[in-house]
Amino acid sequence: MNTRTTAPFHVDPALAQALLAPRSVALFGASDDAGKTAGRPLKFLRAAGYEGRIYPINPNRSTVQGEAAYASLAALPEVPEHVFILTPTDTVTDAVRECARLGVKLVTILASGFSESGAEGVAREAALRALCEHSETRVLGPSSLGVVNPRAGLVLTANAAFAEPELPQGRVFVASHSGSMLGALVSRGKARGVGFSGLVSVGSESDLCVGEICMATLDDPAIDGYLLFLESLRHGDKLRAFALEAARRGKPVIAYKLGRSAAAAEMAATHTGALAGEDDIADAFLKDLGIARVGVLEALLEAFPLARRIPLHGAGAPLRRVGVVTTTGGGAAMVVDQLGIRDVVVEPASPATLEKFAAAGIAVSAGRVLDLTLAGTNYNVMKGALDIMFDAPEFDIVLAVVGSSARFQPQLAVKPIIDSAARAKPLAAMLVPDAPEALAALTAAEVPCFRSPEACADAIAALLARRTPGAQPMVQGASAATAASLSEAQAYAILDELGVPHAPAATMPLAGPARKLPFGFPVVAKVCSAQIPHKTEVGGVVLGIQDQAGLDAALATLRQNLAGRAPDTPCDEVLVQPMTRGLAEVLVGYRVDPEAGPVIMLAAGGIWAEVARDRSIRLAPVSVEVAREMIAEVKALQTVSGLRGRQRGDLDALAQAVSALSQLACKPQLRIAEAEVNPMMVLPEGQGVLAVDALVLRS
Amino acid sequence: MNTRTTAPFHVDPALAQALLAPRSVALFGASDDAGKTAGRPLKFLRAAGYEGRIYPINPNRSTVQGEAAYASLAALPEVPEHVFILTPTDTVTDAVRECARLGVKLVTILASGFSESGAEGVAREAALRALCEHSETRVLGPSSLGVVNPRAGLVLTANAAFAEPELPQGRVFVASHSGSMLGALVSRGKARGVGFSGLVSVGSESDLCVGEICMATLDDPAIDGYLLFLESLRHGDKLRAFALEAARRGKPVIAYKLGRSAAAAEMAATHTGALAGEDDIADAFLKDLGIARVGVLEALLEAFPLARRIPLHGAGAPLRRVGVVTTTGGGAAMVVDQLGIRDVVVEPASPATLEKFAAAGIAVSAGRVLDLTLAGTNYNVMKGALDIMFDAPEFDIVLAVVGSSARFQPQLAVKPIIDSAARAKPLAAMLVPDAPEALAALTAAEVPCFRSPEACADAIAALLARRTPGAQPMVQGASAATAASLSEAQAYAILDELGVPHAPAATMPLAGPARKLPFGFPVVAKVCSAQIPHKTEVGGVVLGIQDQAGLDAALATLRQNLAGRAPDTPCDEVLVQPMTRGLAEVLVGYRVDPEAGPVIMLAAGGIWAEVARDRSIRLAPVSVEVAREMIAEVKALQTVSGLRGRQRGDLDALAQAVSALSQLACKPQLRIAEAEVNPMMVLPEGQGVLAVDALVLRS
Repeated sequence: MNTRTTAPFHVDPALAQALLAPRSVALFGASDDAGKTAGRPLKFLRAAGYEGRIYPINPNRSTVQGEAAYASLAALPEVPEHVFILTPTDTVTDAVRECARLGVKLVTILASGFSESGAEGVAREAALRALCEHSETRVLGPSSLGVVNPRAGLVLTANAAFAEPELPQGRVFVASHSGSMLGALVSRGKARGVGFSGLVSVGSESDLCVGEICMATLDDPAIDGYLLFLESLRHGDKLRAFALEAARRGKPVIAYKLGRSAAAAEMAATHTGALAGEDDIADAFLKDLGIARVGVLEALLEAFPLARRIPLHGAGAPLRRVGVVTTTGGGAAMVVDQLGIRDVVVEPASPATLEKFAAAGIAVSAGRVLDLTLAGTNYNVMKGALDIMFDAPEFDIVLAVVGSSARFQPQLAVKPIIDSAARAKPLAAMLVPDAPEALAALTAAEVPCFRSPEACADAIAALLARRTPGAQPMVQGASAATAASLSEAQAYAILDELGVPHAPAATMPLAGPARKLPFGFPVVAKVCSAQIPHKTEVGGVVLGIQDQAGLDAALATLRQNLAGRAPDTPCDEVLVQPMTRGLAEVLVGYRVDPEAGPVIMLAAGGIWAEVARDRSIRLAPVSVEVAREMIAEVKALQTVSGLRGRQRGDLDALAQAVSALSQLACKPQLRIAEAEVNPMMVLPEGQGVLAVDALVLRS
Repeated sequence: MNTRTTAPFHVDPALAQALLAPRSVALFGASDDAGKTAGRPLKFLRAAGYEGRIYPINPNRSTVQGEAAYASLAALPEVPEHVFILTPTDTVTDAVRECARLGVKLVTILASGFSESGAEGVAREAALRALCEHSETRVLGPSSLGVVNPRAGLVLTANAAFAEPELPQGRVFVASHSGSMLGALVSRGKARGVGFSGLVSVGSESDLCVGEICMATLDDPAIDGYLLFLESLRHGDKLRAFALEAARRGKPVIAYKLGRSAAAAEMAATHTGALAGEDDIADAFLKDLGIARVGVLEALLEAFPLARRIPLHGAGAPLRRVGVVTTTGGGAAMVVDQLGIRDVVVEPASPATLEKFAAAGIAVSAGRVLDLTLAGTNYNVMKGALDIMFDAPEFDIVLAVVGSSARFQPQLAVKPIIDSAARAKPLAAMLVPDAPEALAALTAAEVPCFRSPEACADAIAALLARRTPGAQPMVQGASAATAASLSEAQAYAILDELGVPHAPAATMPLAGPARKLPFGFPVVAKVCSAQIPHKTEVGGVVLGIQDQAGLDAALATLRQNLAGRAPDTPCDEVLVQPMTRGLAEVLVGYRVDPEAGPVIMLAAGGIWAEVARDRSIRLAPVSVEVAREMIAEVKALQTVSGLRGRQRGDLDALAQAVSALSQLACKPQLRIAEAEVNPMMVLPEGQGVLAVDALVLRS
């Protein structure tokens, strides 16, 4: 039986050691040809000067690349701490079994052909999982290109890009679903002066996943932050646990996640065998857990120094207002534009700040940015400008955009930025020309700096969009897949318990005759059965009933429709409600996402939800305050926000209702997998909101 | 009198010569200090080996940087072909006057302080314009950082970035509103292996503008394409004329335009003194003129080789379908994702193509992209895959995404791409790691190649979004600023002439009594006067009139409202129409934009137009076919496109109406500056569309 999944998930220095600093490594299936995939790890380990013991295993040769080879795992003089299996797919399971038998701590599997490869592969993966569950051996992969730790010379990878003479060392740890991306990040990082404290290709995460691997390393004092390359959101529970602990320790996490477009989401599924969830749920998950999700690849490399300067757990209001100073109006406008399309607004200088500029004799073009112009390309001018901005209360973050002088005369406008590195207020620089020396000097001084307007704006926007993780619980076991729906009347009982307002409802037997109603006409009558979640599909709704006789006729119609379209479905009751019209209709939905956990969604109602995908998502539960932020994010609700003199809807009541529904996340005893109010009518200000239909699934 | 603006706008080799290859240059106000802005041009020209004659002018010194200086323009031994005025703002006008008197062909002005600098600056600019209009001397600037032609060693600029030992030469010409960006492009181009056949900082375009400068150079055989850095759309008529001629000659034009966000649009205005128009109008203008508008800075540098391979005037259907082959699933997914968010869909391989892969023994992961995986990182595999893709009819463009091997083993997967450079089908490469040598080899072979997924996708999307310029005329003189509105009845007469359907309308005297109507009740009555363009603001509309008595009452109400709210406005008539309800309401608008010329817009009706900015714009006129494309771009119209079994609106009739209204662009004799139908009711399929209100402005 599996002891591990029941054990608490925790920081695991022993696992981190087996992963990043094993004292011994076996290369199972090492090739004599150093140019071949299975030959690379031995070559790379030797080239990097790895100081642990290396055991090449190859039953067909006495030597491999000039070193003594062993015939089998059992023939080794010790049990290796980490085994890299380089042999083909069909040999892997036996090798892992042998590792488990011997008590190897960690096995990395290069081969693919598991869950992403049809029925045969799924069976292989199942066998592998079963092996893992019955031993203490942990598995990285399959489809893992390996592990690299530049600090220890551990270049335990088959990725050709690691034929790198000197691997850049740094303070960030990389975990990637894609093994190829490790090579991309190391080479790009080297070109950019960005180094790493470790890189892991997690492959298809049959055992160890991104969250567990990163969590294991959190005690490593050489790791100050994490970069994640994610193809999809997988093993969300462990990623969540890691993110919360990283946030608690003040170690920033930055993620690049594929799947913004439908085509890429589909690709992630075929590429890895995983099912891709909806991207905006993953987006809400990452942001709510304090992870900065970048959208530009270079920003993944460049964002970390700025992340260190923008605390996640800041006191008071979140940092939002970016002040920009520049020597090039055109160059700064590119950044402002890129910030603008990411909804980050650049703050203009206050009159008081402009007065300080005047008093200091610094000529500046007033406007959205402080433009010193070509004439202000001068150490004292830029330094003076920065000093004023650091003291200006209207700026939370100071961004200096430097023009052509950065290339050959960094002493003019780049050096004053470097000399400001110790200031407390977050500071960043963007260089408009190609200026590698200035970039290197800024990087060396740990000043956040960017070489493209897109990466600069993307990193800033991603960091500002992070939210400090709250107390969202992880709810297990409430899966929509195995859930059954409640009747509408039962659903309203749940809403009542939560305090979500709904239209008055009366039930009566479908058989008739119609009972007297506690409210007036016109009304709507709907069949009410847990077996009929989609009432309109069976003709189960009659609208606009004007009087008691009409209600009797409606019951007859419903009986006739059910007899014709769903003769075998049990249904005894009818639910009657007053006809309700609101200023706007919205959809409020709660569900337990298999990866993200409990989420709450607010969306434009009706066809707009489908056409414009106009919705806002958060991890549940949310406070009324967060629900207000969600309302502000749904464009359709601007139509009832008082715009252009139009009547304002009761958005306070809507925020209350959204928050109330989201509290399901705190009531696991109710076993609700999904609860959707659609539509929720937003009435005029002061009159509240009313759910007029609800669908609840209980597991 | 100005002879130039009445002369036809044309390719002007003499102007191009004065700009890019003058035989003599005078530096007015040259500084002895080569580090100062006014000292740089002399230093840079000498360093670059410019072979023309150089005349430093400085009345205070006999020598400048060791060269003989002249006291004045008049003291020179010849009339220089090009004068660069480096002196402060208040000396510029006199210097230009002297140039004009002497018959200098071209004057470039460095100083700022003209139209962007308040009333005084505007007066200076007016004086400068007056000077230009009365002479043959042309002016570049003010606020121009100068001109660079690496072919001739003409580094006539004050931009510090041009202290570049070797300027990269190439086949593209750059015109930029921002002078600082020239330095950015040259330095970035140099790092990227991209060179230039000329660069011009156009400054504030007081005389010469981007369009005229580029047009002047079109005969230059060393210029194969154009890169534009635009802060806003200015001098649209000349840009249009240039773009049409460049398209005719097959010289691609690629533009980076600021102003995607509101904040940057505002900045462009303050920075240059120009009024920024709406970005989506500029966007339609660029695309309709065949200009590829990129959104990522690096794409501006990288897109040109691909632009040469994707003809603008292609026969048959436009190229749209991108096929992707890769050695790295994760790396390719980044590009697919970036393409997807730009609405470019990657085409999967057909079964026939997959059979060819199998027959050739090339193992490939089927799916959205052809993934050869790490195992397929091999010359013959990649070459074989490319060959099959070039012959596959489902791919218009082939994109190869190469993983880690590109860095140290370009012979494996990069060389086969280079060896395919001569294939007719458009081909591009994206390198996932930092691989400068592979990039340089691809660039040297003129294979379009990209080093970031964002630039790659952006360039492809921008090139595919270009439209072959049609016969859209330039309509002059119909300015909304001086236009007067017609009455609604007069507006309907215009719609009748164009064939745009509207609801039946009857007019009658406001004084009453109500006349008999040629259509049934219920009706709406509206005051009808050219003096009252916005009827609801004066209470000039009565809805839901049920009978003749109600109509009389409505006339009384309208008289009373007018007497109360607009007592002095002449209004004699009332317009009566049947109440009309459609499946959807849209806004169809025609207007003569001051820069873009006649444009036609289709937008979601009502508040959605404001909230979601859900609209599509084209240069007018448009065919019915193009109008259909516009309909497909307006999300709100998906609600009446038959989605999910909903009733379909008459979108054919809407396309006819949009095209019909756009024909105003071909009827300059009508002098219509603006014509807006709002709302246009879209009725169920087969029942047409009906304008139920219209506002027309005539100049």
